[in-house]
Amino acid sequence: MPTIDDRLHELGITLPNAPAPGGSYVPVVLASGMAYVAGQIPAVDGEIRFTGTVGRDVNEDTAREAAKTCALNILAALRAALDGDLDRVRRCVKLGVFVQCVEDFDRQPEVANSASDVMLAVFGEAGRHARFAVGANALPRNVTVEIDAVFEIV
Amino acid sequence: MPTIDDRLHELGITLPNAPAPGGSYVPVVLASGMAYVAGQIPAVDGEIRFTGTVGRDVNEDTAREAAKTCALNILAALRAALDGDLDRVRRCVKLGVFVQCVEDFDRQPEVANSASDVMLAVFGEAGRHARFAVGANALPRNVTVEIDAVFEIV
Amino acid sequence: MPTIDDRLHELGITLPNAPAPGGSYVPVVLASGMAYVAGQIPAVDGEIRFTGTVGRDVNEDTAREAAKTCALNILAALRAALDGDLDRVRRCVKLGVFVQCVEDFDRQPEVANSASDVMLAVFGEAGRHARFAVGANALPRNVTVEIDAVFEIV
Repeated sequence: MPTIDDRLHELGITLPNAPAPGGSYVPVVLASGMAYVAGQIPAVDGEIRFTGTVGRDVNEDTAREAAKTCALNILAALRAALDGDLDRVRRCVKLGVFVQCVEDFDRQPEVANSASDVMLAVFGEAGRHARFAVGANALPRNVTVEIDAVFEIV
Repeated sequence: MPTIDDRLHELGITLPNAPAPGGSYVPVVLASGMAYVAGQIPAVDGEIRFTGTVGRDVNEDTAREAAKTCALNILAALRAALDGDLDRVRRCVKLGVFVQCVEDFDRQPEVANSASDVMLAVFGEAGRHARFAVGANALPRNVTVEIDAVFEIV
Repeated sequence: MPTIDDRLHELGITLPNAPAPGGSYVPVVLASGMAYVAGQIPAVDGEIRFTGTVGRDVNEDTAREAAKTCALNILAALRAALDGDLDRVRRCVKLGVFVQCVEDFDRQPEVANSASDVMLAVFGEAGRHARFAVGANALPRNVTVEIDAVFEIV
Protein backbone atom coordinates (compact mmCIF):
# COMPACT_ATOMS: atom_id res chain seq x y z
CA MET A 1 0.00 0.00 0.00
CA PRO A 2 1.47 3.37 -0.96
CA THR A 3 2.54 5.64 1.86
CA ILE A 4 1.70 9.32 2.16
CA ASP A 5 5.30 10.05 1.22
CA ASP A 6 4.77 8.02 -1.97
CA ARG A 7 1.63 10.04 -2.62
CA LEU A 8 3.49 13.32 -2.13
CA HIS A 9 6.14 12.12 -4.56
CA GLU A 10 3.48 11.10 -7.08
CA LEU A 11 1.90 14.55 -6.77
CA GLY A 12 5.28 16.19 -7.30
CA ILE A 13 5.08 17.84 -3.89
CA THR A 14 8.27 18.46 -1.96
CA LEU A 15 7.45 19.69 1.50
CA PRO A 16 9.41 22.69 2.75
CA ASN A 17 11.49 22.43 5.90
CA ALA A 18 9.30 22.41 8.99
CA PRO A 19 8.65 26.07 9.78
CA ALA A 20 10.00 27.62 12.97
CA PRO A 21 7.27 29.28 15.02
CA GLY A 22 7.24 33.08 14.92
CA GLY A 23 6.75 33.51 18.67
CA SER A 24 6.49 31.87 22.10
CA TYR A 25 4.69 28.77 20.94
CA VAL A 26 5.25 25.44 19.21
CA PRO A 27 4.23 24.40 15.69
CA VAL A 28 2.26 21.31 16.75
CA VAL A 29 0.77 19.92 19.95
CA LEU A 30 -0.20 16.26 20.14
CA ALA A 31 -2.96 15.71 22.69
CA SER A 32 -5.59 13.01 23.17
CA GLY A 33 -5.19 11.53 19.73
CA MET A 34 -5.31 14.85 17.91
CA ALA A 35 -2.60 17.05 16.41
CA TYR A 36 -3.19 20.78 16.73
CA VAL A 37 -1.13 22.68 14.17
CA ALA A 38 -0.38 26.35 14.86
CA GLY A 39 -1.41 28.99 12.34
CA GLN A 40 0.91 28.70 9.33
CA ILE A 41 1.89 31.57 7.08
CA PRO A 42 3.05 31.43 3.45
CA ALA A 43 6.77 31.29 4.16
CA VAL A 44 9.27 28.87 2.66
CA ASP A 45 12.39 28.09 4.64
CA GLY A 46 11.82 31.13 6.81
CA GLU A 47 11.28 33.59 3.99
CA ILE A 48 7.78 34.98 3.58
CA ARG A 49 6.61 34.56 0.00
CA PHE A 50 3.15 36.13 -0.13
CA THR A 51 2.29 39.47 1.46
CA GLY A 52 -0.39 42.04 0.78
CA THR A 53 -4.13 42.42 0.92
CA VAL A 54 -6.40 40.64 -1.56
CA GLY A 55 -8.39 43.13 -3.61
CA ARG A 56 -5.79 45.87 -3.27
CA ASP A 57 -2.21 44.55 -3.38
CA VAL A 58 -2.68 41.04 -4.69
CA ASN A 59 -5.32 39.16 -6.67
CA GLU A 60 -7.23 36.00 -5.92
CA ASP A 61 -4.84 33.75 -7.85
CA THR A 62 -1.94 34.94 -5.74
CA ALA A 63 -3.98 34.42 -2.59
CA ARG A 64 -4.65 30.86 -3.73
CA GLU A 65 -0.92 30.27 -4.10
CA ALA A 66 -0.45 31.69 -0.61
CA ALA A 67 -3.08 29.33 0.80
CA LYS A 68 -1.42 26.34 -0.88
CA THR A 69 1.91 27.35 0.65
CA CYS A 70 0.28 27.53 4.11
CA ALA A 71 -1.12 24.02 3.55
CA LEU A 72 2.32 22.66 2.66
CA ASN A 73 3.73 24.24 5.82
CA ILE A 74 0.97 22.56 7.84
CA LEU A 75 2.02 19.21 6.40
CA ALA A 76 5.70 19.95 6.99
CA ALA A 77 5.06 20.91 10.62
CA LEU A 78 2.87 17.87 11.14
CA ARG A 79 5.37 15.48 9.59
CA ALA A 80 8.10 16.79 11.87
CA ALA A 81 5.85 16.37 14.91
CA LEU A 82 5.05 12.80 13.86
CA ASP A 83 8.75 11.90 13.54
CA GLY A 84 8.50 11.92 9.78
CA ASP A 85 5.53 9.56 9.56
CA LEU A 86 2.51 11.19 7.91
CA ASP A 87 0.90 7.74 7.69
CA ARG A 88 -0.10 8.27 11.31
CA VAL A 89 -2.74 10.75 10.06
CA ARG A 90 -6.18 9.17 10.35
CA ARG A 91 -8.10 12.24 9.28
CA CYS A 92 -7.68 15.91 8.45
CA VAL A 93 -10.36 17.22 10.79
CA LYS A 94 -10.44 20.98 10.36
CA LEU A 95 -8.79 23.98 8.73
CA GLY A 96 -9.20 27.55 9.99
CA VAL A 97 -8.51 29.94 7.11
CA PHE A 98 -7.92 33.68 7.51
CA VAL A 99 -7.58 35.75 4.33
CA GLN A 100 -6.21 39.30 4.55
CA CYS A 101 -8.52 41.20 2.23
CA VAL A 102 -10.40 44.38 1.54
CA GLU A 103 -13.95 44.79 2.81
CA ASP A 104 -15.66 43.95 -0.44
CA PHE A 105 -13.73 40.77 -1.19
CA ASP A 106 -16.10 37.86 -0.68
CA ARG A 107 -14.35 34.88 -2.26
CA GLN A 108 -12.53 33.55 0.81
CA PRO A 109 -13.87 30.04 0.02
CA GLU A 110 -12.17 30.02 -3.39
CA VAL A 111 -8.90 31.06 -1.71
CA ALA A 112 -9.30 28.42 1.00
CA ASN A 113 -10.05 25.73 -1.58
CA SER A 114 -6.47 25.63 -2.74
CA ALA A 115 -5.41 24.66 0.80
CA SER A 116 -8.29 22.20 1.12
CA ASP A 117 -7.39 20.66 -2.23
CA VAL A 118 -3.91 19.87 -0.92
CA MET A 119 -5.43 17.83 1.91
CA LEU A 120 -7.76 16.00 -0.48
CA ALA A 121 -4.95 15.24 -2.92
CA VAL A 122 -2.56 14.00 -0.24
CA PHE A 123 -4.88 12.07 2.07
CA GLY A 124 -7.80 11.13 -0.22
CA GLU A 125 -10.99 10.38 1.73
CA ALA A 126 -9.09 10.99 4.99
CA GLY A 127 -8.38 14.50 3.79
CA ARG A 128 -12.04 15.56 3.76
CA HIS A 129 -12.26 18.16 6.51
CA ALA A 130 -14.48 20.78 8.11
CA ARG A 131 -13.36 24.36 7.70
CA PHE A 132 -14.04 27.99 8.29
CA ALA A 133 -12.83 30.66 5.86
CA VAL A 134 -13.09 34.32 6.87
CA GLY A 135 -11.61 37.69 6.04
CA ALA A 136 -9.20 39.61 8.26
CA ASN A 137 -8.22 43.24 8.00
CA ALA A 138 -4.66 42.48 9.12
CA LEU A 139 -2.42 39.42 9.51
CA PRO A 140 1.07 38.90 10.97
CA ARG A 141 3.91 40.24 8.82
CA ASN A 142 1.31 41.43 6.30
CA VAL A 143 0.87 37.86 4.99
CA THR A 144 -2.01 37.22 2.61
CA VAL A 145 -3.25 34.03 4.28
CA GLU A 146 -2.88 32.27 7.65
CA ILE A 147 -4.23 28.75 8.24
CA ASP A 148 -4.34 26.52 11.30
CA ALA A 149 -5.40 22.88 11.41
CA VAL A 150 -6.50 19.92 13.49
CA PHE A 151 -5.77 16.30 12.55
CA GLU A 152 -6.80 13.02 14.09
CA ILE A 153 -3.79 10.75 14.44
CA VAL A 154 -3.02 7.17 15.45
CA MET B 1 -38.20 10.98 27.59
CA PRO B 2 -38.65 13.57 24.84
CA THR B 3 -36.20 13.45 21.96
CA ILE B 4 -34.40 16.43 20.49
CA ASP B 5 -36.72 16.19 17.49
CA ASP B 6 -39.67 16.48 19.93
CA ARG B 7 -38.00 19.49 21.44
CA LEU B 8 -37.49 21.10 18.02
CA HIS B 9 -41.17 20.51 17.25
CA GLU B 10 -42.18 22.00 20.61
CA LEU B 11 -40.06 25.07 19.86
CA GLY B 12 -41.66 25.39 16.43
CA ILE B 13 -38.29 24.94 14.75
CA THR B 14 -38.12 23.26 11.36
CA LEU B 15 -34.53 22.69 10.40
CA PRO B 16 -33.56 23.64 6.85
CA ASN B 17 -32.14 21.03 4.50
CA ALA B 18 -28.57 20.19 5.41
CA PRO B 19 -26.45 22.83 3.68
CA ALA B 20 -24.06 21.85 0.91
CA PRO B 21 -20.51 23.04 1.54
CA GLY B 22 -19.38 26.03 -0.49
CA GLY B 23 -16.00 24.57 -1.37
CA SER B 24 -13.60 21.61 -1.19
CA TYR B 25 -14.62 20.49 2.25
CA VAL B 26 -17.34 18.63 4.15
CA PRO B 27 -20.00 20.04 6.47
CA VAL B 28 -19.14 17.81 9.46
CA VAL B 29 -16.24 15.61 10.53
CA LEU B 30 -16.76 13.02 13.26
CA ALA B 31 -13.49 12.26 15.04
CA SER B 32 -12.64 10.87 18.47
CA GLY B 33 -16.09 11.40 19.91
CA MET B 34 -16.45 14.94 18.65
CA ALA B 35 -18.32 16.47 15.72
CA TYR B 36 -16.59 19.38 14.02
CA VAL B 37 -19.09 21.45 12.05
CA ALA B 38 -17.75 23.64 9.24
CA GLY B 39 -18.43 27.37 9.27
CA GLN B 40 -22.10 27.89 8.43
CA ILE B 41 -23.53 30.92 6.67
CA PRO B 42 -27.08 32.30 6.81
CA ALA B 43 -28.42 30.47 3.77
CA VAL B 44 -31.63 28.49 3.58
CA ASP B 45 -31.84 25.70 1.01
CA GLY B 46 -28.86 27.12 -0.83
CA GLU B 47 -30.08 30.69 -0.98
CA ILE B 48 -28.21 33.25 1.10
CA ARG B 49 -30.65 35.24 3.23
CA PHE B 50 -28.52 37.76 5.10
CA THR B 51 -25.76 39.79 3.50
CA GLY B 52 -24.17 43.11 4.37
CA THR B 53 -22.06 44.69 7.05
CA VAL B 54 -23.50 45.44 10.50
CA GLY B 55 -23.37 49.15 11.24
CA ARG B 56 -23.53 50.14 7.59
CA ASP B 57 -25.81 47.89 5.52
CA VAL B 58 -27.76 46.04 8.20
CA ASN B 59 -28.61 46.60 11.85
CA GLU B 60 -28.06 44.46 14.92
CA ASP B 61 -31.52 42.87 14.80
CA THR B 62 -30.90 41.64 11.29
CA ALA B 63 -27.50 40.32 12.32
CA ARG B 64 -29.20 38.41 15.14
CA GLU B 65 -31.55 36.78 12.64
CA ALA B 66 -28.53 35.89 10.53
CA ALA B 67 -26.81 34.30 13.53
CA LYS B 68 -29.92 32.28 14.33
CA THR B 69 -30.04 31.03 10.74
CA CYS B 70 -26.39 29.96 10.99
CA ALA B 71 -27.24 28.05 14.18
CA LEU B 72 -30.10 26.22 12.48
CA ASN B 73 -27.77 25.27 9.64
CA ILE B 74 -25.29 23.93 12.18
CA LEU B 75 -28.03 21.71 13.60
CA ALA B 76 -29.15 20.63 10.14
CA ALA B 77 -25.61 19.70 9.13
CA LEU B 78 -25.04 17.89 12.41
CA ARG B 79 -28.30 15.94 12.17
CA ALA B 80 -27.42 14.76 8.67
CA ALA B 81 -23.96 13.67 9.86
CA LEU B 82 -25.55 11.75 12.75
CA ASP B 83 -27.93 9.91 10.42
CA GLY B 84 -30.84 11.98 11.63
CA ASP B 85 -30.28 11.34 15.33
CA LEU B 86 -29.57 14.56 17.26
CA ASP B 87 -30.02 12.59 20.49
CA ARG B 88 -26.44 11.46 20.00
CA VAL B 89 -25.35 14.99 21.05
CA ARG B 90 -23.88 14.85 24.54
CA ARG B 91 -22.81 18.48 24.63
CA CYS B 92 -22.56 21.60 22.52
CA VAL B 93 -18.91 22.36 23.24
CA LYS B 94 -18.03 25.51 21.34
CA LEU B 95 -19.24 28.08 18.82
CA GLY B 96 -16.90 30.31 16.84
CA VAL B 97 -18.81 33.41 15.75
CA PHE B 98 -17.60 35.86 13.10
CA VAL B 99 -19.68 39.02 12.55
CA GLN B 100 -19.08 41.12 9.44
CA CYS B 101 -19.21 44.65 10.83
CA VAL B 102 -17.81 48.15 10.73
CA GLU B 103 -14.88 49.10 12.95
CA ASP B 104 -16.91 50.76 15.65
CA PHE B 105 -19.49 47.99 16.10
CA ASP B 106 -18.81 46.36 19.44
CA ARG B 107 -21.90 44.26 20.15
CA GLN B 108 -20.75 40.96 18.62
CA PRO B 109 -21.82 39.15 21.84
CA GLU B 110 -25.43 40.29 21.42
CA VAL B 111 -25.39 39.03 17.83
CA ALA B 112 -23.82 35.73 18.87
CA ASN B 113 -26.38 35.29 21.65
CA SER B 114 -29.13 34.52 19.21
CA ALA B 115 -27.12 31.53 17.95
CA SER B 116 -26.19 30.51 21.50
CA ASP B 117 -29.82 30.76 22.55
CA VAL B 118 -30.76 28.19 19.89
CA MET B 119 -28.35 25.70 21.45
CA LEU B 120 -29.69 26.37 24.95
CA ALA B 121 -33.31 26.04 23.82
CA VAL B 122 -32.73 22.83 21.89
CA PHE B 123 -30.31 20.97 24.17
CA GLY B 124 -31.00 22.50 27.60
CA GLU B 125 -28.05 22.05 30.00
CA ALA B 126 -26.19 20.12 27.28
CA GLY B 127 -26.42 23.21 25.12
CA ARG B 128 -24.27 25.36 27.40
CA HIS B 129 -21.12 26.00 25.37
CA ALA B 130 -17.90 27.98 25.25
CA ARG B 131 -17.66 30.56 22.50
CA PHE B 132 -15.71 33.30 20.85
CA ALA B 133 -17.43 36.19 19.08
CA VAL B 134 -15.34 38.57 16.99
CA GLY B 135 -15.70 41.08 14.19
CA ALA B 136 -14.48 40.52 10.62
CA ASN B 137 -14.04 43.10 7.90
CA ALA B 138 -15.17 40.62 5.24
CA LEU B 139 -16.92 37.26 5.06
CA PRO B 140 -17.67 34.83 2.20
CA ARG B 141 -20.39 35.96 -0.21
CA ASN B 142 -20.76 39.14 1.87
CA VAL B 143 -22.72 37.24 4.56
CA THR B 144 -23.39 39.03 7.81
CA VAL B 145 -22.43 36.15 10.12
CA GLU B 146 -20.45 32.90 9.89
CA ILE B 147 -20.40 30.36 12.74
CA ASP B 148 -18.58 27.07 13.21
CA ALA B 149 -19.12 24.59 16.05
CA VAL B 150 -17.81 21.62 17.98
CA PHE B 151 -20.08 19.06 19.68
CA GLU B 152 -19.35 16.09 21.89
CA ILE B 153 -21.28 13.06 20.67
CA VAL B 154 -21.98 9.50 21.78
CA MET C 1 6.57 18.81 44.05
CA PRO C 2 5.39 22.41 43.72
CA THR C 3 1.80 22.95 42.63
CA ILE C 4 0.67 25.36 39.96
CA ASP C 5 -0.65 27.59 42.75
CA ASP C 6 2.87 27.60 44.25
CA ARG C 7 4.21 28.51 40.84
CA LEU C 8 1.70 31.38 40.47
CA HIS C 9 2.73 32.64 43.91
CA GLU C 10 6.43 32.39 42.98
CA LEU C 11 5.72 34.40 39.81
CA GLY C 12 3.85 37.02 41.81
CA ILE C 13 0.67 36.35 39.86
CA THR C 14 -2.68 36.75 41.58
CA LEU C 15 -5.44 35.52 39.34
CA PRO C 16 -8.48 37.76 39.03
CA ASN C 17 -11.90 36.46 39.98
CA ALA C 18 -13.24 34.05 37.40
CA PRO C 19 -14.85 36.22 34.73
CA ALA C 20 -18.60 36.05 34.16
CA PRO C 21 -19.48 35.34 30.53
CA GLY C 22 -20.73 38.31 28.53
CA GLY C 23 -23.61 36.42 26.92
CA SER C 24 -25.57 33.18 26.63
CA TYR C 25 -22.65 30.86 27.10
CA VAL C 26 -20.35 29.43 29.77
CA PRO C 27 -16.71 30.27 30.44
CA VAL C 28 -15.43 26.68 30.19
CA VAL C 29 -16.70 23.37 28.84
CA LEU C 30 -15.04 20.14 29.94
CA ALA C 31 -15.48 17.42 27.31
CA SER C 32 -13.56 14.24 26.47
CA GLY C 33 -10.51 15.16 28.51
CA MET C 34 -10.24 18.68 27.17
CA ALA C 35 -11.19 22.07 28.60
CA TYR C 36 -12.51 24.57 26.08
CA VAL C 37 -12.20 28.11 27.44
CA ALA C 38 -14.46 30.78 25.93
CA GLY C 39 -12.91 33.90 24.40
CA GLN C 40 -11.60 36.07 27.22
CA ILE C 41 -11.35 39.82 27.12
CA PRO C 42 -9.03 42.11 29.13
CA ALA C 43 -11.41 42.77 32.02
CA VAL C 44 -10.58 42.52 35.70
CA ASP C 45 -13.41 41.78 38.09
CA GLY C 46 -15.94 42.75 35.46
CA GLU C 47 -14.35 46.04 34.49
CA ILE C 48 -12.78 46.24 31.05
CA ARG C 49 -9.23 47.55 31.29
CA PHE C 50 -7.99 47.74 27.71
CA THR C 51 -10.00 49.15 24.84
CA GLY C 52 -9.06 50.67 21.53
CA THR C 53 -7.44 49.72 18.25
CA VAL C 54 -3.71 49.01 18.03
CA GLY C 55 -2.02 51.44 15.67
CA ARG C 56 -4.57 54.18 16.24
CA ASP C 57 -5.79 54.35 19.84
CA VAL C 58 -3.23 52.22 21.67
CA ASN C 59 0.30 51.04 21.06
CA GLU C 60 1.83 47.59 20.97
CA ASP C 61 2.95 47.68 24.60
CA THR C 62 -0.59 48.35 25.75
CA ALA C 63 -1.85 45.55 23.53
CA ARG C 64 0.67 43.23 25.15
CA GLU C 65 -0.68 44.14 28.58
CA ALA C 66 -4.18 43.46 27.28
CA ALA C 67 -3.11 40.04 26.00
CA LYS C 68 -1.54 39.20 29.35
CA THR C 69 -4.78 40.15 31.11
CA CYS C 70 -6.74 37.87 28.76
CA ALA C 71 -4.33 35.03 29.62
CA LEU C 72 -4.86 35.55 33.34
CA ASN C 73 -8.63 35.45 32.80
CA ILE C 74 -8.22 32.19 30.90
CA LEU C 75 -6.40 30.74 33.91
CA ALA C 76 -8.98 32.12 36.33
CA ALA C 77 -11.87 30.65 34.33
CA LEU C 78 -10.07 27.33 33.99
CA ARG C 79 -9.24 27.13 37.70
CA ALA C 80 -12.88 27.73 38.60
CA ALA C 81 -13.99 25.02 36.17
CA LEU C 82 -11.46 22.60 37.68
CA ASP C 83 -12.74 23.26 41.22
CA GLY C 84 -9.67 25.27 42.05
CA ASP C 85 -7.16 22.65 40.95
CA LEU C 86 -4.93 23.87 38.09
CA ASP C 87 -2.72 20.82 38.67
CA ARG C 88 -5.25 18.91 36.59
CA VAL C 89 -3.84 20.68 33.51
CA ARG C 90 -1.79 18.22 31.49
CA ARG C 91 -1.12 20.59 28.61
CA CYS C 92 -1.98 24.00 27.26
CA VAL C 93 -2.98 22.87 23.76
CA LYS C 94 -3.95 25.98 21.84
CA LEU C 95 -4.58 29.72 22.04
CA GLY C 96 -6.66 31.63 19.51
CA VAL C 97 -5.59 35.29 19.58
CA PHE C 98 -7.55 38.12 17.99
CA VAL C 99 -5.97 41.60 18.04
CA GLN C 100 -8.13 44.64 17.22
CA CYS C 101 -5.84 46.67 15.01
CA VAL C 102 -5.51 48.92 11.99
CA GLU C 103 -4.88 47.40 8.57
CA ASP C 104 -1.17 48.02 8.51
CA PHE C 105 -0.39 46.59 11.95
CA ASP C 106 1.46 43.33 11.42
CA ARG C 107 2.91 42.47 14.82
CA GLN C 108 0.06 40.29 16.16
CA PRO C 109 2.62 37.61 17.12
CA GLU C 110 4.43 40.02 19.43
CA VAL C 111 1.13 40.92 21.09
CA ALA C 112 0.15 37.26 21.40
CA ASN C 113 3.54 36.39 22.91
CA SER C 114 2.70 38.08 26.16
CA ALA C 115 -0.26 35.69 26.57
CA SER C 116 1.81 32.72 25.46
CA ASP C 117 4.56 33.68 27.88
CA VAL C 118 2.07 33.43 30.77
CA MET C 119 1.35 29.82 29.82
CA LEU C 120 5.05 28.99 29.54
CA ALA C 121 5.84 30.64 32.89
CA VAL C 122 2.99 28.96 34.74
CA PHE C 123 3.03 25.46 33.24
CA GLY C 124 6.63 25.09 32.01
CA GLU C 125 6.95 22.41 29.30
CA ALA C 126 3.21 21.68 29.63
CA GLY C 127 2.56 25.29 28.68
CA ARG C 128 4.01 24.95 25.17
CA HIS C 129 0.99 25.37 22.90
CA ALA C 130 -0.08 25.80 19.30
CA ARG C 131 -1.62 29.14 18.42
CA PHE C 132 -3.06 31.40 15.82
CA ALA C 133 -2.73 35.19 16.06
CA VAL C 134 -4.70 37.36 13.65
CA GLY C 135 -6.00 40.89 13.31
CA ALA C 136 -9.66 41.88 13.64
CA ASN C 137 -11.26 45.14 12.58
CA ALA C 138 -13.64 45.05 15.58
CA LEU C 139 -13.95 43.18 18.87
CA PRO C 140 -16.65 43.06 21.57
CA ARG C 141 -16.86 46.18 23.76
CA ASN C 142 -14.01 47.68 21.71
CA VAL C 143 -11.47 45.53 23.57
CA THR C 144 -7.95 45.44 22.22
CA VAL C 145 -7.47 41.66 22.44
CA GLU C 146 -9.66 38.55 22.75
CA ILE C 147 -8.18 35.09 23.35
CA ASP C 148 -9.74 31.65 23.60
CA ALA C 149 -7.97 28.45 24.63
CA VAL C 150 -7.99 24.67 24.72
CA PHE C 151 -6.30 22.64 27.47
CA GLU C 152 -5.81 18.92 27.95
CA ILE C 153 -6.78 17.92 31.48
CA VAL C 154 -6.68 14.86 33.71
